[in-house]
Amino acid sequence: MTQIAGQQSIKFDKSAHIISAASIVGKKEGEGPLGKLFDLVGEEASFGENTWEEAESTLQREACQLALGKAKLLPTQMRYVFCGDLLGQLIASSFGVMNFNIPMFGLYGACSTCGESLSLGAMAVSADYADYVMAVTSSHFGSAEKQFRFPLEYGNQRPLAATWTVTGSGAFILAKKGGHARITGITTGKIVDYGVKDSLNMGACMAPAACDTIYQNLMDFNRQPDDYDKIITGDLGYVGQTILIDLLKEKGFDISRVHMDCGIEIYDRETQDTHSGGSGCGCSAVTLAAKILPNVEKGAWKRVLFVPTGALLSPTSFNEGQSVPGIAHGVVIEHC
Amino acid sequence: MTQIAGQQSIKFDKSAHIISAASIVGKKEGEGPLGKLFDLVGEEASFGENTWEEAESTLQREACQLALGKAKLLPTQMRYVFCGDLLGQLIASSFGVMNFNIPMFGLYGACSTCGESLSLGAMAVSADYADYVMAVTSSHFGSAEKQFRFPLEYGNQRPLAATWTVTGSGAFILAKKGGHARITGITTGKIVDYGVKDSLNMGACMAPAACDTIYQNLMDFNRQPDDYDKIITGDLGYVGQTILIDLLKEKGFDISRVHMDCGIEIYDRETQDTHSGGSGCGCSAVTLAAKILPNVEKGAWKRVLFVPTGALLSPTSFNEGQSVPGIAHGVVIEHC
Repeated sequence: MTQIAGQQSIKFDKSAHIISAASIVGKKEGEGPLGKLFDLVGEEASFGENTWEEAESTLQREACQLALGKAKLLPTQMRYVFCGDLLGQLIASSFGVMNFNIPMFGLYGACSTCGESLSLGAMAVSADYADYVMAVTSSHFGSAEKQFRFPLEYGNQRPLAATWTVTGSGAFILAKKGGHARITGITTGKIVDYGVKDSLNMGACMAPAACDTIYQNLMDFNRQPDDYDKIITGDLGYVGQTILIDLLKEKGFDISRVHMDCGIEIYDRETQDTHSGGSGCGCSAVTLAAKILPNVEKGAWKRVLFVPTGALLSPTSFNEGQSVPGIAHGVVIEHC
Repeated sequence: MTQIAGQQSIKFDKSAHIISAASIVGKKEGEGPLGKLFDLVGEEASFGENTWEEAESTLQREACQLALGKAKLLPTQMRYVFCGDLLGQLIASSFGVMNFNIPMFGLYGACSTCGESLSLGAMAVSADYADYVMAVTSSHFGSAEKQFRFPLEYGNQRPLAATWTVTGSGAFILAKKGGHARITGITTGKIVDYGVKDSLNMGACMAPAACDTIYQNLMDFNRQPDDYDKIITGDLGYVGQTILIDLLKEKGFDISRVHMDCGIEIYDRETQDTHSGGSGCGCSAVTLAAKILPNVEKGAWKRVLFVPTGALLSPTSFNEGQSVPGIAHGVVIEHC
């Protein structure tokens, strides 16, 4: 029987179960509204390392270790690790997961990578290519600012549309059975380019991609927004959320009642000076591990659509005057 | 029935057929020993664009277009595109494949990405997630030197162990049936780090990873080197080839009779001043499309093990004194 659903989705015959999840974040995220929900909050941004990049590798390593510990599994039992981060050539991931000695697929989907890794991981488990796989993604405020914007020491001003890159990593273990949350379908995103060139307004760059993926998911699965307890984007922030809701209304769907954005959830707008919200691969990953999955696991939310969103730019493409296209990968997660 | 083979391989119940392949290269590659085999040779390195990065995007776009044309298929018929390149945040791929509007998985495995994309593409087709998928990878001498080393204008000297990044892109279309070459199995690589820190001797950085993947492939499939007509690494070059053959001899396998390296094939050592050979995501991809597949398709080679090799470094990790670990993804391709 075909598992192909509509134009760009898969409805799995056999779900991939999320049997373990772990989150580790920095101090600022620990002080935010979700602070008490994370597994580990670092005391300092360097996590004991000499560079921001090594710190981010440590985040990934610790998140994986925590997820393995919770599942009482060993790295040798993981058939694949699907991993990614925001840095050029994925160095946070490579140096982060290297010592686990797990066959690795390196992924890049900007801040949508958590959705990409869960999608490919679920495809592998559902197709019997693996008993267990791990999916891990991360971001770090220090390494991301250095990579994409200015040295931290420069102390540049940030416009109100800007988001704050989350320091954190989320790791997930997928298996054929177990746990109380499972991935029942995916909608893989296309690149959507509205021609926005402002790398400090990533919400606007990514909202059209989120709209495209959510719309396609509703069409492919023949669902209405209310068929989901939550439709959760990765890191659109306040600016992007408004655009997304407007764009989907134009297409005939009102998601305002069920929409939630990890970038809005993770920081307190009034006190944490993070402007439009949080962003980064880590943002959706740690929110999934710390807040979304527990709600699905206990049945408070029966079915959610998790849609991490990514802005596809590099310092080079930005400096060369290219636009910032977006991409968003949808993952349907249900209580079981 | 399980498709899991040994420790890190898959033996597909249903093979993914490579029904179309296309290659496009730069002038230097066109002047090399494989020159007449490529589908398209560019007159100038910029391929009509303003920047090296846009040129590389054009390479990917043209390679995809050629592969689609050969298969008489439309972009809308592709369920997924699995793509990657060497640049930070995969900008060559994002801007290259964007306009095809195909659901996209962005991948990074350094120069092993061609193997990663074929592996994940074959997994998707074999599991009935897609009728057709496209896999495309690229590299460009200009964009890679700028990204990893020095501005071209600086005219730095290159040590004899250095390789020359291939300007080129190879695109492949996978389907459930058709064509005369099929992917029957894969061996997904782990990251292998021998602690080499010389980014101008990538052959030495990658040879241990190639050894690990080839050894594991032979063990997982219970094969001897002679069970393959060719064991083909991506871009070890002359230096890496010697190391690989020595390392595998220590593990009890002599592959010297069947070993071939795309980096050695693509340039003429005597006349093209490319030192240890060619490298880059494009090197293995264009050699697969132009030389390897035609030999498999006509049955001259019944079964080959194609092992693109990647060096996992970034300018940042290198400048911070990190080592250069390697990874290699094995793809078993057979005549049919």
